[in-house]
Formats: sequence, structure tokens, C-alpha cells
Amino acid sequence: MTLTDRTDAAARKILYGGDYNPEQWPREVWDEDAAAFAEAGIETLTLGVFDWAQLQPSEHEFDFSQLDAIIEHVVATGRSFVLATATGALPPWLAHQHPEVTRVDFQGRKHRYGQRHNHCPNSPVFRRLSPALAGRLAERYGNHPQLVAWHIGNEYGGFDGGCWCDNCGIAYRVWLRERYGSLDELNRAWNATFWSHTYGDWDEIVPPNILSEHWRGPNHTAFQGNTLDYLRFMSDSMLRNYLDEKAAIRAHDATTPATTNFMGMFRPLDYQRWAEHLDFVSWDNYPPGDREHARMALTHDLMRGLKQGDPFWVMEQTPTITASRDVNPVKRPGVLRLWSWQSVAHGADAVLYFQMRQSPGACEKYHGALLDHAGRTDTRSFREAAALGAEFERVGDALLGARTPARAALVFDWNSWWASEITDGLNRHLAYPAVVQAYHRALWQAGVDLDVISVHDDLDGYDLVVAPQLHLVQNDVAERMRAVAERGGTVVASALTGRVDASDNAFLGDAPGPFAPLFGVRVEETDSLPPGEVNGVRWADGVEGSASLVFELLVPEGAETEAVYEHDFYAGRPVVTRNAVGSGEAWYVAAHADDAALARLFAPILERHGLVGPYAGAHDLEFAVRQGTGGRFAFLLHHGLEPVEVIAHASGVDVLTGARIEQGQTLTIAPRDVIVLRED
Amino acid sequence: MTLTDRTDAAARKILYGGDYNPEQWPREVWDEDAAAFAEAGIETLTLGVFDWAQLQPSEHEFDFSQLDAIIEHVVATGRSFVLATATGALPPWLAHQHPEVTRVDFQGRKHRYGQRHNHCPNSPVFRRLSPALAGRLAERYGNHPQLVAWHIGNEYGGFDGGCWCDNCGIAYRVWLRERYGSLDELNRAWNATFWSHTYGDWDEIVPPNILSEHWRGPNHTAFQGNTLDYLRFMSDSMLRNYLDEKAAIRAHDATTPATTNFMGMFRPLDYQRWAEHLDFVSWDNYPPGDREHARMALTHDLMRGLKQGDPFWVMEQTPTITASRDVNPVKRPGVLRLWSWQSVAHGADAVLYFQMRQSPGACEKYHGALLDHAGRTDTRSFREAAALGAEFERVGDALLGARTPARAALVFDWNSWWASEITDGLNRHLAYPAVVQAYHRALWQAGVDLDVISVHDDLDGYDLVVAPQLHLVQNDVAERMRAVAERGGTVVASALTGRVDASDNAFLGDAPGPFAPLFGVRVEETDSLPPGEVNGVRWADGVEGSASLVFELLVPEGAETEAVYEHDFYAGRPVVTRNAVGSGEAWYVAAHADDAALARLFAPILERHGLVGPYAGAHDLEFAVRQGTGGRFAFLLHHGLEPVEVIAHASGVDVLTGARIEQGQTLTIAPRDVIVLRED
Amino acid sequence: MTLTDRTDAAARKILYGGDYNPEQWPREVWDEDAAAFAEAGIETLTLGVFDWAQLQPSEHEFDFSQLDAIIEHVVATGRSFVLATATGALPPWLAHQHPEVTRVDFQGRKHRYGQRHNHCPNSPVFRRLSPALAGRLAERYGNHPQLVAWHIGNEYGGFDGGCWCDNCGIAYRVWLRERYGSLDELNRAWNATFWSHTYGDWDEIVPPNILSEHWRGPNHTAFQGNTLDYLRFMSDSMLRNYLDEKAAIRAHDATTPATTNFMGMFRPLDYQRWAEHLDFVSWDNYPPGDREHARMALTHDLMRGLKQGDPFWVMEQTPTITASRDVNPVKRPGVLRLWSWQSVAHGADAVLYFQMRQSPGACEKYHGALLDHAGRTDTRSFREAAALGAEFERVGDALLGARTPARAALVFDWNSWWASEITDGLNRHLAYPAVVQAYHRALWQAGVDLDVISVHDDLDGYDLVVAPQLHLVQNDVAERMRAVAERGGTVVASALTGRVDASDNAFLGDAPGPFAPLFGVRVEETDSLPPGEVNGVRWADGVEGSASLVFELLVPEGAETEAVYEHDFYAGRPVVTRNAVGSGEAWYVAAHADDAALARLFAPILERHGLVGPYAGAHDLEFAVRQGTGGRFAFLLHHGLEPVEVIAHASGVDVLTGARIEQGQTLTIAPRDVIVLRED
Repeated sequence: MTLTDRTDAAARKILYGGDYNPEQWPREVWDEDAAAFAEAGIETLTLGVFDWAQLQPSEHEFDFSQLDAIIEHVVATGRSFVLATATGALPPWLAHQHPEVTRVDFQGRKHRYGQRHNHCPNSPVFRRLSPALAGRLAERYGNHPQLVAWHIGNEYGGFDGGCWCDNCGIAYRVWLRERYGSLDELNRAWNATFWSHTYGDWDEIVPPNILSEHWRGPNHTAFQGNTLDYLRFMSDSMLRNYLDEKAAIRAHDATTPATTNFMGMFRPLDYQRWAEHLDFVSWDNYPPGDREHARMALTHDLMRGLKQGDPFWVMEQTPTITASRDVNPVKRPGVLRLWSWQSVAHGADAVLYFQMRQSPGACEKYHGALLDHAGRTDTRSFREAAALGAEFERVGDALLGARTPARAALVFDWNSWWASEITDGLNRHLAYPAVVQAYHRALWQAGVDLDVISVHDDLDGYDLVVAPQLHLVQNDVAERMRAVAERGGTVVASALTGRVDASDNAFLGDAPGPFAPLFGVRVEETDSLPPGEVNGVRWADGVEGSASLVFELLVPEGAETEAVYEHDFYAGRPVVTRNAVGSGEAWYVAAHADDAALARLFAPILERHGLVGPYAGAHDLEFAVRQGTGGRFAFLLHHGLEPVEVIAHASGVDVLTGARIEQGQTLTIAPRDVIVLRED
Repeated sequence: MTLTDRTDAAARKILYGGDYNPEQWPREVWDEDAAAFAEAGIETLTLGVFDWAQLQPSEHEFDFSQLDAIIEHVVATGRSFVLATATGALPPWLAHQHPEVTRVDFQGRKHRYGQRHNHCPNSPVFRRLSPALAGRLAERYGNHPQLVAWHIGNEYGGFDGGCWCDNCGIAYRVWLRERYGSLDELNRAWNATFWSHTYGDWDEIVPPNILSEHWRGPNHTAFQGNTLDYLRFMSDSMLRNYLDEKAAIRAHDATTPATTNFMGMFRPLDYQRWAEHLDFVSWDNYPPGDREHARMALTHDLMRGLKQGDPFWVMEQTPTITASRDVNPVKRPGVLRLWSWQSVAHGADAVLYFQMRQSPGACEKYHGALLDHAGRTDTRSFREAAALGAEFERVGDALLGARTPARAALVFDWNSWWASEITDGLNRHLAYPAVVQAYHRALWQAGVDLDVISVHDDLDGYDLVVAPQLHLVQNDVAERMRAVAERGGTVVASALTGRVDASDNAFLGDAPGPFAPLFGVRVEETDSLPPGEVNGVRWADGVEGSASLVFELLVPEGAETEAVYEHDFYAGRPVVTRNAVGSGEAWYVAAHADDAALARLFAPILERHGLVGPYAGAHDLEFAVRQGTGGRFAFLLHHGLEPVEVIAHASGVDVLTGARIEQGQTLTIAPRDVIVLRED
Repeated sequence: MTLTDRTDAAARKILYGGDYNPEQWPREVWDEDAAAFAEAGIETLTLGVFDWAQLQPSEHEFDFSQLDAIIEHVVATGRSFVLATATGALPPWLAHQHPEVTRVDFQGRKHRYGQRHNHCPNSPVFRRLSPALAGRLAERYGNHPQLVAWHIGNEYGGFDGGCWCDNCGIAYRVWLRERYGSLDELNRAWNATFWSHTYGDWDEIVPPNILSEHWRGPNHTAFQGNTLDYLRFMSDSMLRNYLDEKAAIRAHDATTPATTNFMGMFRPLDYQRWAEHLDFVSWDNYPPGDREHARMALTHDLMRGLKQGDPFWVMEQTPTITASRDVNPVKRPGVLRLWSWQSVAHGADAVLYFQMRQSPGACEKYHGALLDHAGRTDTRSFREAAALGAEFERVGDALLGARTPARAALVFDWNSWWASEITDGLNRHLAYPAVVQAYHRALWQAGVDLDVISVHDDLDGYDLVVAPQLHLVQNDVAERMRAVAERGGTVVASALTGRVDASDNAFLGDAPGPFAPLFGVRVEETDSLPPGEVNGVRWADGVEGSASLVFELLVPEGAETEAVYEHDFYAGRPVVTRNAVGSGEAWYVAAHADDAALARLFAPILERHGLVGPYAGAHDLEFAVRQGTGGRFAFLLHHGLEPVEVIAHASGVDVLTGARIEQGQTLTIAPRDVIVLRED
């Protein structure tokens, strides 16, 4: 029941298409659409994402006539479809008749009907009606030969990221009872003696928000243990919504794979906990800026890593502009192609758009689409999309199912993200994703094939494991990282690692807690400075790179000092250390290091393991590999704005152009151009 | 029943005076006041603006004794009065006994008693009690020979701009039924298929605020159609409050003109829809900064245009400082006189102050007044006010009723303001008033006599019609602008024009929608960039000016290219185009243009129509004309800080000094000096 | 019943210790603690600050067993203790069973259980239960020989600073009745005629917050009189909480001194009104930055002044880092010692920490402590704390009870703070504490021994009285300041002085109101300019210093002009004046003056009175004196980062080192070093 098991024609190429809402348009437009789809090489359409009101006009009335007609039209024009369960937005009658279904926000305000992603995940009526609708859809359309996948809900956690109503309070207390068993255990876990918080009755516990434990915002809480549990609980609550609907589908359709569209580095949901319940991962790629290739590379890797390297889908991207930013620049010429191939390079087997035709009204009416309000196919953006569609057709099934041959891994951990950002007493300017990005960028710039994994994943296959700011420790990951080093590998950690246990209580010993023996250091003090104040990183042969924001003062306990602070009262004290462990090494970086410091740090490590990519010196030229039954494919993605000259690392054929490339040949790659080299 | 019909002495000069609150002071102060008024040439006093609590101490009790005494005193000292209906602030008992009367704000919070402008416009009790009070006042004081005008309510829409309570919800649904007739029509207008919003029952509709369709603030809405209708509804609701009171007055006083004080470019209220219900327009001139002469010129023109050029009143301005800003600088010497004459130059027949004597306490105690807390008449500010009063006396009735002889018009449209600022997907840094101001400033700097009109106004008299960012199109204005060009005139439009219909649904064709044929262009893409990133505007002979924020990529369909973009991937594509239409021209500006680009744009247009003013080259020297039975008056207003030398454009007499000026004579105008030349 | 009456051993030295929460730890840790305390010279521990939930597990159940054990342990290891009443945070059951007890915040939101300082001060149930607990504690532990003091509540006013619930509304109306007697008097005091606010029934009055009189925030109010009264009322309400508990203690323990921990320049509470009810003042010293020595000097002086120069306690400071800032830098080496001795120099007889051992969990887990999570005593921070403890032991009781021999006074006034910051119409960038700090800094830099006093304090002993921005005048302070000048002293005032009476109504005459005759000036206008726009201050011999933010235009009425404005239309008008009064002088500064202008201003004044300290020229070298039965002690505190050389002003012994110093000897003081010279 995974995607790659499928044998139907639609799946024999990189899927191309996207969200299609013909219900907003008269019938005559549908034929225009189909002609444009043919011109653009589009074969896969996602249907019905926000159709609840149409499918169920009132609580006891269903109407599938329009969806029948749409599917009939899609199928008749030879296309496959992804079917949504339509529960991403409530219909007005539901909120009107069952006010409990809407959310109470972090500010404690009860919401009325509006927007989307607008249900309380613990609303009994939502939990009754949403799977009921999903079941009816599965009963009617499940097992359709051109149904590619189920799209359950939509962008779970969108807006505000949760609910703090009394129904959530009830469900939270049930969740806490299951987690802790007793109030004594909960009081201990939350360190409730502090500030007189010892609970004597479960009912005394209320959701932590601005009306209870929080001030200023979601990251400022009096009780980290409570807030951390609520984050977990809320992620689990929405996962249960997903599972409710999936179970209802499975009652009628045992085989069509099911997914929901993730949102990359999205803090509210612990996708690593969700992923096992998705038959394949899909995500919506809306980078916040237009020079985000490094960030997207990480996010693709993260999404691929959720299911241990299985290919994923880009469920949404915009062909032109977004509508939700303050400023919405168009994608420059070539960017759509470049970014689409980047997603394939990192493991995507489908590249889909939001959306096929621009909405006439409401808040996404200016969001880009394959077809604009005039339905033109003679625009730059349509031409670029059609050219990309032609490339996907040309490449066919060669890449499907191919995997990244990574020997390096980066650990990403939602619990450490949450815990390090909700804590008081460190530096609130230090964002967990920024730290992870810095380490990922260092490896990505060096062209290292890389997996982004969770603390629960197997580390056996990796020569290098980098775990930046693994603040919260919830299992034996320290021992498993030691094993990597013991057998000759390298492990790397950074400041603020190993500070708290799964309940966010400090380890009562030296930091980095369970990691201290592995890295051979202890932290005596932790200094913090405002953004902009930096300290130099001095190596044996001089200063290279700088440190900022947090500065741990280490006492080596076995480790060698590789670099020291240049300034302040701790000048000369170690900032980078290396500990020999077995036949391998454990490196520790005691501050927030910049790109130069990290490049210097990784140079000998990558050298030792032979991990450096062939084009590491070429700035903005991304290199990635996928390997499968169709062969080994090297992707050269040029994000720079000037042409670049490189020497081909291997011989083969560029599957985009059919051109033959010989190893050692000089390649001149134009700005935003792409080569996909099937190596001989 | 208009002002200019009046024949009493008070009206035979530019009215001078302002808000007078003797009820805050003991009787002995009243005589001091009268002596100061005489010294300052003040003859008109606005009474009772916030007297509800005094006039009606409880629901069934009225007490007019103090107001009787005040009016008696005012009348006895030979002055006229404007009488307020006293409903601008609720008395405490009303809010206490009828909690429904207070507002629910945009955040959804029910307010208690406090501040002013504090009633829900759809409160049944307010709609009962406010006209009842107005009626009683009219019964008692209506038709008084020295009553100049009725001042209904006060600054409608002040604070927050509206209410979102359940009474408003009820009234909103009635308003929507009247507008749309059926839910099908409403669902179509709001594009409700999007995000599952199809309404099945009117009662499912709730006011759009932060608890329903909005996030972040009033401009971030999931459903533009709903929010746009609520803006219209709220403006209409307050207009109904005004009309309730006006009708109550008219039952007793059929002739005294009635007004309410507008607030210039005030977004919450569509003054163009209100104006027909005012017997004359009045407004409160509190510029946000102290170098705002260009902005005030536009605002005066806008206020004058509300009633097709009829003279208006400045109902309030401060003689010295405001109290409500974060920083409240004093008006520099000469500024009060300069700005007062500027208002007359643009059509004011009355120049009034808030207020006569500084309040002892509460939030306006530091707001400037004719008389300070010490009641001194030997201060700079009193002397300047008295000198101005003397000038008004000297000028007498010469200017009353005189009109601006404009052949150019600028279109200002509340619906486009609302629609362009609540939309997603464009550039949120592009404020509608800033765009309109840029075009107005270009014409104002050139000394063009200019009307600011609505899309409903007749265009017949104009050689030039400029309609910046006319985003929402609600009638046949495109056809009427075409007619201007056909008969030899010039029309000008700018980026984001013609995008949506009256329901904020995109035109399903090329932008600029109904304007596309007139301007001979279509928009292929719309780029947006952050503030500070600019693109040069290249004309045939070089770069002049720049563009920022939004950048439409045009495909000319008949138009000539006058200027192109200098940079980016659309370098060389048109940014300014000119389309020959009949014997006239239609110019289109595809981006947000700076002052230099607009000056260059308008130079040939103004030349062609002979619209350039005589002092266009003299920076900061404003030129304006009023023409009436008293003659043709040219105003030279020098806003600069250095003396300026110019050659007199005509012969005549400076009515402020009595000095004779000959055409061709060199005039040296001191900083902040004013000449009012009655041309021979 | 004051501290200095105590004769037990513990009090015979500067007290050293702090908050101790062994209830968060297993018993075995307690012995480790005691050993570390011995090593660090710690003899005083504050117990039970947040123990309500443990002491009273439910409404009718008390459990003192753990506290018994803790006290037993503390006492057995030879230490004294301060006992808290444990009411600084509610137990969960109290909020759950009596929802009335939690606060309604300024936004009008009812809070649920969470955080600390979380009770409504006017909650009947809190007023019943909190003194009941305090009484039980006093009954059990009062009069214990090693009980040093009672610590009532904790940091009153923490978070949000108040409550706006209906119980507060009821209590507020009672408070208002007591203050005003009649509604007529209240309406007059609040100038209620303005904006129709005349109250006809007490019940019409509601707490002023964002749902009634406020907008934007706590400083933006429509009615200053109401808001000012609410500030007073809320300060009084919390004082009543303190008094409730103190009375309950006194029923069982008549002698142990009682205090609560103040927070320095903390706006919500008028500590000058509280102080008489504390047996000694204590406060928590958490400077917002790490270069705050001048600000701390002022705050120490303010705290000392609350009880007319009696020694005070530093109840809390952090040994290393805080946890509540966005960025939490460690205290640099030497800073802990330097700042601790600074507090002693300004009158502290106790220097205590928050806290003894770092909490394992919740929001203060990273707040610094004597012992870190690992319990190490080999850290830099522990070593510095222990060295300081050794110094305190060495110095013994020499300094106890010694007082500052000040002949200069600075007036600090909570009412002026409130009134000047909640007003409209001045400059919202002008913060009262910043003004006071500027004047204090000028005197502090000159090494002037200085008291910070209230407007109610006796002025007889002072040669110089500086009263910056004494905006609100509530008593005969103007007459008493005149008396200072009459007898040959000097008084200094600054812009915005003498503007309003105790009800925040403007004086109906020339500013500075009752001070006008004393300073011999009147204010004709008050200009305001944005931050960054400055005007030069021109003295007879040239420009020295500058003025910003507010600029009063003075008319001298007897005063001599000492300096004039350099720019703007008021160039040449006085900015600094001096009025001869009796044998003394009254100086007025008409704008917000910078450090250079104030240094210039004070130079002749300090000269005249012989007030300049011996090291006035040495930058960053603080000089302070305490004088008592143990002798006269001169403190030299070097806040600079480079060594400084000075000539010793007197002979004596440095009690920290035992070194002999001779007058005239060159002293080289290292950065952050301290000398405490017992003068011969």
C-alpha cells in the first residue's frame, strides 16, 4: 500500500498536476482547463479539498452530484486524481449548529465561524462528522482505478496551531493520565513544587495559554513541562483526527495510499511521530523568500527522512506568486524549473501545484495558478510550467523510487525544538531551525549526500552523525551516537545539547548531560550575548569564523581543544573540541558558530570519511544524487546568477536534454540551469 | 437650506470661532471669554458637543437650564452659535442601564463605559434615545436667529471604526438580504465555494472580525467580499444614526443647515455616500505632521469635492498643539495663519478651532486652545489667532461662496481604498492614500486647479481625469473616462487598476479589466518587491524617476510605450504607456511611481491642456484660485522656510494688506507669508 | 522592632545567604547544601516563599511537617532564617474551587490558574485565606530565636501590576467614596463634564482598562483622574493584602521584623506609601543590563530613602545569570563582588541571593544560583560568592546601621511618575525614570552623597534639593523647597514641573503652578520634538550640552537667564534660569537636558555648597560614604574596565584587605576592584 507498489500508467512518471477546484467555475470552463492540462503535460489532479459544504449541505444531507461530474470529467480526459476528504474547512451550518466545534485560541478567545483549519481537534462533533464524511467518500470513490491517493484533511495545524477550549482541557487531562498514571508523577515531571503548583486533583489542570501559564506569547511559559506536554498533546490530537478519517477510509478502501500535506519545518506538529501513519509523505513547499535553496534542501531532506528515505510528494507549490506574504514577488524566469528539479533531486516523485486556475474571489484570488483569471496559455508562467511538464514526460519513470545514498545524517528533533524555544534563561534570539540550518548548510555546500533523521532512527549506516542543539534527551541516542564513534565514525554536537530530560527537567549533573562522556567535556557556565556581538573562533593556525548568541565555557574532560574563543574573559577557553572515542571522533561546538567556522570544522571530518561532493568548490551549484533501479542520477542545480564552469565528475547522459557528457569535460552551466546526469 | 443662502450678519464673512465648553467653567470665566473673543474677532461658537449627561441626567429627565444660560450669554454678546446634538459620547447612566449600547470591538471584546464615540450604531436603545434628544434640542432651540447650523453627533467612526456585536450581526444580515436578495446571490458574490463557505441559512453569517474571518488585523481577511460588505454596512449604519437625528431635527426646524464633522481621508466612512445628506460639509483638520501642506491640500480638495465644489467648513483645527500624538510640536510662528488661509484657498468659508479654552482635566487638557489654562491673551498663540481674526474681518464676504475653477479632476474612491488594502497577494506596503497623494502632489506642485471627485461624479467639465489605483470598479466609470479621452481630454490610471468588481471578484479576463481597451494594454504578471527596492523608469531620452513596490508587466495592445523598466528580468518592458483615443489620450503607469517620474509624466499632459499654474517652478509656493461673485482670487501660500522671488502673474489687490500688485512685478514672499490677490 | 535592634549573632555582620527551596530536593541533598553554605560563609536562608500548596494541601488541611524538617535542618546547621508567608503564588485547589481569586487583566480577560502573583488583591477569599495562613505560620514559628524576619507575600504587583475584575470594581467604588465623599466631588476631580462623563450613581463607575477608558495601553486613557485613582487604589489594595498578613502575624509574634521584597523603581506600587508599614525595606536587585551601576546607585538610594535613611536589605540578586531576559549574560568576573559592595555602600546591611540551588525544572531552571544543577563548588561563580562571603565575615559588624551623611536630596514621586506618563499632549518618549536618572547621574558622577526622598520628607537637613519633573503637586512641597532656598540652599526643578494638582487637573494659572514664584519664571508654550532632534544649550561662554524631547518657552519673572536655546524659533530664549531667593537660589531647567548640560548646571551649585566628592574627575569610579558607630567608611567602587590612578582623599585602613592607606598616597585601582576605607 505504498506509492511505489502502484503499477498504473499515471504513476510511471514523476506526477505532475495539482489542486483543481472546478466547482468554482461553470462547466464550459472545464473543457478549456482540460486542453490547457494537455498542453502542460498534467496528469494528476487533487480534488475536493474544501468541498465539505457542497458534499454535505446540512448535517443529514449529502450531495455527491457535482463531485461525480468532476471526477467523470477528469477521468474521461485521461487523468488520475487525488481525492481529499474535504475536512480542511468546516461548513457554516456545522459551526452554527454546534458552536463547540470552533476553536478557542491561545489568547483564550472563543472563535466563531470563519477561515479554514477552524475545528477544535478535540470536538466530539468533529470527531463524529469528519470520519463519517471520509467514510462516505471512500465508500463511493475508493478503489477507483484512477484514484492515486487519499488526501486526508489539509495542512493540519494551520492558523494558530491549536485549540485551548474546555473540550481540549478534558482531553488533555485524559492524555496526561495516560502519560503519567498518577498526579504524584505529574507533579514530579512538571517540578510542581516550584511556585506552589502541586496539583491535588486532575481537574485543577487547565490548558496552558495566555490565561494561565503564559505571558507575552507561546514561548513564554511559567511551566515548561506543562507547555511541552500540551504541544505534544495538540500534535497527537490532530494526528487522531487524521487517524479517525483514515480508519473510516480503510473500512471501504484497503489499498489506496493515504497522506496529508505536511508543511516542512512546521513547529506545531511532530511529523516524526505522524509519519508512520502516512502511506507516503507529501508536503507544501512555500519558501518564505526567493533565495531559499539551502533551506528548501534541508526541508526536502527532512520530509524524505520522515519515512526513512522513501520518495515523497511535493503536494503544493506555486507556479508564480504566493498571496499570503506581505510582499509577493513573482518567481523569476527559470526558478520554477530549478526548484522543481531540486525537489526531485532530494527525493520527490511528484511535483504538484496549488493550483490549476486562479480563484475569482476571496483571499487566494491573487495566488498564482497554472491558469490566470483570463485563462491564458500564452503567458511566461504557463510556458515555463508546460516546458517542465514536457521534461517530466521525457524523463519518464527513470527516477521513480530512487533513493539518496547518504552516509551522513543530521538529527532533527521536534522535542528539542520545542524545549529550547520555550525555555527561559538562554538566548531567545537563538532559534532551533536556524541552528539546524547552519549545520545542514555546511554539509549541503560541500555536496554531501545527507539524510535528516529523528533520534529514533537507526544510526548504523552512517559515517557521520550531526546532532545540533539536541537540547532534550528522550531515549538512548547518546549511547547510539557513541556507537557510531566507537566503530570509526564521527559525531558532532553543539551548544545547549543534553540539557533536559523528556519532562524538561535539567539533568542534575554536568551539561551536556548524558552526552558529557561521549564528548569529553563539561559546561561550567553559559554566557549569552545580544545579536550582533560576536567572538572570534581561533584555531591552531589563526582565527577562522565566529561565534554568537550563546557561549558555553567548557572544561575539557578528555577532549582535545581544536579552537578557542578569541575575546572576552573566556578568551583562550575551548569553543571546539574533539574527543577520541574508539576508532572515531566526537566533536563539540560550544557556541553558535557561523558558516566559516562550520566549514572549517567539517573540512577534516568530511575528508576523513570521503564525503565531499565533486563540486564542493562551486558556489551555489547544488549537487545531489538519487540511485535506483533506473540507475544513478547526479543532479547539478545552479542557483547562482552567473554562469559557472566545472569539470564533469562522471560520464553519462543528461536525461533532460539527451546530451552526452564525458568525465573530465568542462561544463558551462547557465544561471538556474539544471543537469540530470544518468551516470554510465 | 444651504449655508450660502443665509443672510444674517454672522455669515457675511469667513466664520471664525470654534468649540466652546463653558459648562466646564464657573460663570465668572464666561465674561473673560467674551472679552477675549472680541479681541480675537470671533463670532461663531459651537456648543454642547459632549453635553448629553448634562442635558439628560437620566433616561426620563431633561435639564436645559445650563444650555439656556450659555446660549443666552453667547447671544447677548452678539455671537452666533452652532448647536451640537450632544450624542458624540454616551452618559454613564445609559451604558449602565442599557449595556447593549456599548461596542464590541474588532477583537470581539465587549466594552464597558468609557471614552467617547462609544455607542454601537445598531443599538436599538441608541437609535431610540439619540434622535429623541436631538428632537428635544431642535424643539427648544431650532430656528433661533443666531443658530448658524446643527452639528449632528461628532466625528462618526472615531476610535476603532465600528462595532461587531450581535445587534450589528442582526442588522448586517438585514442589510445583506437587502443587497443580495438571496443566499445564492450572496454565495456567488463572496465566492463562497472557496474554503467551504457556502451559506445555507442567513443566520450562519457573523460579523467578520478577529474571531471569525480575520487574522492579524482588519486588513487580513479570509473573505474579502464579506469584509468589504461589512465596511459598507458599518459606514451605512453610522450614516443611519446621523439620519435618525437629522429627521428628528427636521420635525422642528426645517431650515437650519445640518452637518457633522468629517475627518478628511478617514477610512471607516465612505463620505462620498454620506455627503448628499449633509447640508454642507465640515471637517476637522489635524495633520499628523508639521510639513503636511500637500496632504492637507488634497484633503481640502476631497472635502470640497464631496458636494461637487460647494464651500465647506473647517470645523476644528488646533491653534497651537494637539494632545493625541506621541509627540505634539507647537505650530511654528506663521503656520496657523498659513494653514488657515490654505483651507480658505481650497474652499473653506469657515475656520473654526477646537477649542476656545483649554480643558482643566482629562485627556485633552494639553490640547491647544485660544485661551490657555491661565486665560492669557498676551501669548504668541493668542496674538496670532487674533491677527488672523482681524484679517478675516478685513476680507469680509468677498470670498464667500467662491468656487475653484478646476479643469482637472482626481478620482478618489473609498471602495478601491478598502478593496486594495484588504486583499491578499499584492503588496501590503502599498497604501491607497499614499498612491493618491503621489498623483495629487504632482498636480498640486504644478499649481493645477483640481477637483477631487468620486466615480459617480460627472466628468464632463474636465480636460484631465486622473484615477490612481481604481482597483474596484462599481459602475460605468470606464466608459465615462473613455468619453473624456474621445473628446480630446486626457485620462491617467496606475497599477492595480480595474482588478475587481463591486464584490471584489476578479474580472475573468485581462487586467485592467473594463479599462483594458481604454488604455490599450493588458497585464501579464504583477511583481512585488519590498520597500526600498526600486526600478528605474527609462524614457526615450534617459532614466527619470523610479518605480517601487508593485510592477505590472504589460503587453501593449494598441498603446505606445512612453517609458520602460530599467532593471530586472523585465528591463525594457513598458512601465508608462500612452494610448490614442479619439482626439485624446489614455496614459497608464504600470508601477508605483515616485515624484520625479510623475512630474515627467504630467509635464506634456498639463502642457497640452494649458493646466500649468503660474508659479509651478517655485518650490513650496502653493497656488490656488477661488472665483465667485466677489471676483477671482489668487492665493499665493508660501510653505517654504526661505523667502522666494516670483513675477506676479496678474494685477490686482492683496486683500490681506490692501497692497496693489501689478502683473510682471517682482514679488518677494517671506516664509509662511500669504497673498490673496483679487485679480483686476 | 527594627533590624538594628537585634542582638543575635547572625545580625552582627552583613547578612549573607538567600532563597532556599530544599522542598524541591531529596533529603540527602540538604547536607551537601549545608557544607557548601559553610564554604561560602552563608548564614541566612529565606524559606517557604512559594510553599502554599505544600503547607495547605486543601482548604481545610494544613501540613507543616516538611517545613518543620527544613527549619530544623537550617537551625541545626547554625543558620538563621527568614520565613515567607508563602502567599506569593496560589495553590491550584484555591483557583479551582474559588475562581473569583484569579485576576482579570488590563485587557479584561479573566485568568485561570497559572504562574505566580496570580491573586486578585480584592478577592474576598484571598483576603480570608492568606492572613489565615500567615497567622498559622506565625503561631508555629514566630519568636523562634533564629527567625530573623518575616517575608510577607512576594514581589507584590508582579506580572501585569493589577486586576480589573468586578470585585475590584466594588472595592474601587468604596475607595472612591472614602476619597471623595460625594459624586459631585468626584465629578469635579475627574473633570467629568468633559466627554459627557458626569456620573449620577456610584455603580456607573467601572475599572479603567482597555474595555472602558483606555486604548493602546495602560498609559492611554481618556480620563487621567480615573486612571490615576485606580493606580493609587491598586497600590493600596496590595498594601492591604500585606497589612492583612502582617496583622495576622502580629497576633502571634509581636517583635520579629516584617518586610516584603520591593522591586526598585517599580511603577505599579507607591513604595513611599508602603514603607511605613515595613519594619525594614528589602528589595530585589535585577538590573536590566550589565552596565547599570548608575541606575543601581539611584535605586539603592531610593530604597534607602523609603525609611529616611535606615539600612535596607538586598533580598535577592543573582550570583550569575537571570533567566527572564531575552538575553541572559553571565556576570563578568568581579562584578558580583563589585555590585554587592555597591549595595552595601548605599546602605544595605544584608546581601542575599535568589537562590541557593538551581531549580531542576520550570521557568527559572536556568536562573543562576549559588549551586548549579551539578551542585559544584569548584566553579568560578561559587568561588566568587565564597570569596565575597569571606569578606563579609572579615568586615563583621563594622558597617551595620551606618548611614549616608547626605546634604543633597533628590525628590522621587510616584504620583508624578504616573501622572506624567498617562497624560496626553506632552511627549510620550519622555519617561519619568529617565529624567530622574539623568539628574541622579549628574550628582552621582560628582560623588555627591545623596538621599532620594519623597515630597513628604523633611527638607531641613539639605543644602541642595533637586526635584526633576515634579509634575503633580499634592502638598506644600513648593513652600518647603522655598524654605530651603530662603535659608541659603539651592533647589533645582525641570520641565513639566508643577502642572497638575492631586486630581491631575491643570493649575488654572501659569506653569509651573505653585512653583512659579519660587523659580521666577512662567511657561508660555511647551514644544515637543521627536527623539533625536536636539537643541543646543548656550551659556554665557558658549554651547555646552543639549536639550531634547520637551522645550518650554519661558518668560522670566524675576529669574536670571543662565543659558538659552541655540536653535529654532525660540533661539535665545532661556532654557536654564536662576532665581535668587533669600540667601539661596532656585534653578529651573526648561527642557530635557543631557549629561553635559546637567554637569555644567551643577558645577557651580556643588561648588557653592562644597558637595563635590573627592574623586569626581575619575570616570566610572564611584564614591560613597557610610558613617556609624563603627566609624566613617569611604567606598571606592571602580566600575571601569581599565585601571585608574587616584590620590587617596584620607588616611585609614581598607577593611577588605587590612591594608593601610595614607592621605595623598597614589592608589591604583584595578577594574572592578573595591576599597572600603575606614577613615582614621
